[in-house]
Amino acid sequence: MRIARFSIDGNVAFGAVEGESPPGSTDGLVLDIIKGIPFADFELSGTKVPLSKVRLLPPVLPNKVVAFGRNYADHAKEMGGEVPDAPFAFFKPSTSVIGSGDDIAYPSFTEELHHEAELAVVIGRMCREVPRERVKDVILGYTCANDITARDIQRREKQWARAKGFDSSCPLGPWVETDLDPSDLTIQCTVNGQQRQLGRTSEMIHSIEDLIVNITEAMTLLPGDVILTGTPAGVGPLGVGDEVAVTIEGIGTLTNKVVKRG
Amino acid sequence: MRIARFSIDGNVAFGAVEGESPPGSTDGLVLDIIKGIPFADFELSGTKVPLSKVRLLPPVLPNKVVAFGRNYADHAKEMGGEVPDAPFAFFKPSTSVIGSGDDIAYPSFTEELHHEAELAVVIGRMCREVPRERVKDVILGYTCANDITARDIQRREKQWARAKGFDSSCPLGPWVETDLDPSDLTIQCTVNGQQRQLGRTSEMIHSIEDLIVNITEAMTLLPGDVILTGTPAGVGPLGVGDEVAVTIEGIGTLTNKVVKRG
Repeated sequence: MRIARFSIDGNVAFGAVEGESPPGSTDGLVLDIIKGIPFADFELSGTKVPLSKVRLLPPVLPNKVVAFGRNYADHAKEMGGEVPDAPFAFFKPSTSVIGSGDDIAYPSFTEELHHEAELAVVIGRMCREVPRERVKDVILGYTCANDITARDIQRREKQWARAKGFDSSCPLGPWVETDLDPSDLTIQCTVNGQQRQLGRTSEMIHSIEDLIVNITEAMTLLPGDVILTGTPAGVGPLGVGDEVAVTIEGIGTLTNKVVKRG
Repeated sequence: MRIARFSIDGNVAFGAVEGESPPGSTDGLVLDIIKGIPFADFELSGTKVPLSKVRLLPPVLPNKVVAFGRNYADHAKEMGGEVPDAPFAFFKPSTSVIGSGDDIAYPSFTEELHHEAELAVVIGRMCREVPRERVKDVILGYTCANDITARDIQRREKQWARAKGFDSSCPLGPWVETDLDPSDLTIQCTVNGQQRQLGRTSEMIHSIEDLIVNITEAMTLLPGDVILTGTPAGVGPLGVGDEVAVTIEGIGTLTNKVVKRG
């Protein structure tokens, strides 16, 4: 099931996305409004609205986004670094999250804004110290993410709170796909329709199981928290006016335009 | 005014702390329960309860904690690093926050848990791109913090989400002092009554104004968000059974016991 979060007439709701649409489009898609929230048992209301009539929101409002660095060998190489033996994580704050169709505001403190297409794992239940064989039980589903990065600031500052945590640096969407085997999916990033990144999730150095075991050894994850699983090679610059799109096989396309910060 | 957050009979409330008590004690302190929340205009209810009858909670529930590294030169030296030219920040998640009197759970993935006494700034209103001369307007007040760190993990992992973001790694409290000049206060850390850290906030490399200008250039802060301003020299190990206390002049004492993680 594809679960979207949206606003309509000033109300926020979750809905199941039904129908098929051409790649990159939402034409023909309909939302069946969910009674309740997707983090507990829920029912479909049967009340349907065309997706074109609503504003998509980030599919979840995470308490925290935990992002793993250098989890694809070819990207670790292009960054000029070693492939790390063990995973390492950083946070993106909830204030950085935007949805598909929202604008990325180019911050004034950077001159080198980069895209990083990533598979995002959405956590479905509160969990800590999750054993490897239970990881699947704590996952609600998967969505597309763009780990927008101020590369010049990242090089300059030892920790990445500003470089990767600024407002609108975490596009998520368009929805959460709950029925998906994430082990070998194509992940692609285009800028103005031109391909910049192309990889497969099977190239991850540390698996989704590894990452969730690693982080929940240290901290509690809450329903709606998001894990970013790293980006394949091909990261590159974004300018004002660019349209950046992350497409993951079996999920859909997350599209955002870069605008001047107002 | 000292503003505490507490639970009584299963309800959570804010209260103004009245009265005086001996250092490290809450004997004789009374809470005047606040009508509303301290992030907007509020009144005191006149209903009073002894502080000894309630459970203190973290004085705020931050959406995010932004912590600045190496902001005291003598601590930067003891860490074997350069004094950074510009501030750099990392996040501690809301799941890491505990209050005074709560236990610090020694995580299983570290063998080197350290205390770091810090002055915490509590943000009072939503803000972004705060000019230096307006910084005072966005601050609600100040509290004590302990930036509990898994030092071995910090050395091993390039980014510090696990080393500084694990559950119970961010004790805050005991309350927020709203009437305080933070520019030259003694900040002290004791373990089992023995002094480990002693510094003055006047030794900060980057001022509170610098830090808030720096972070809000990148991201929106929300009411209740917390800024940690760095730790003076003298950081050192904690073991199970230790009682660690952070005392800041004009605020009070934040006390936590280290227990085995259950």
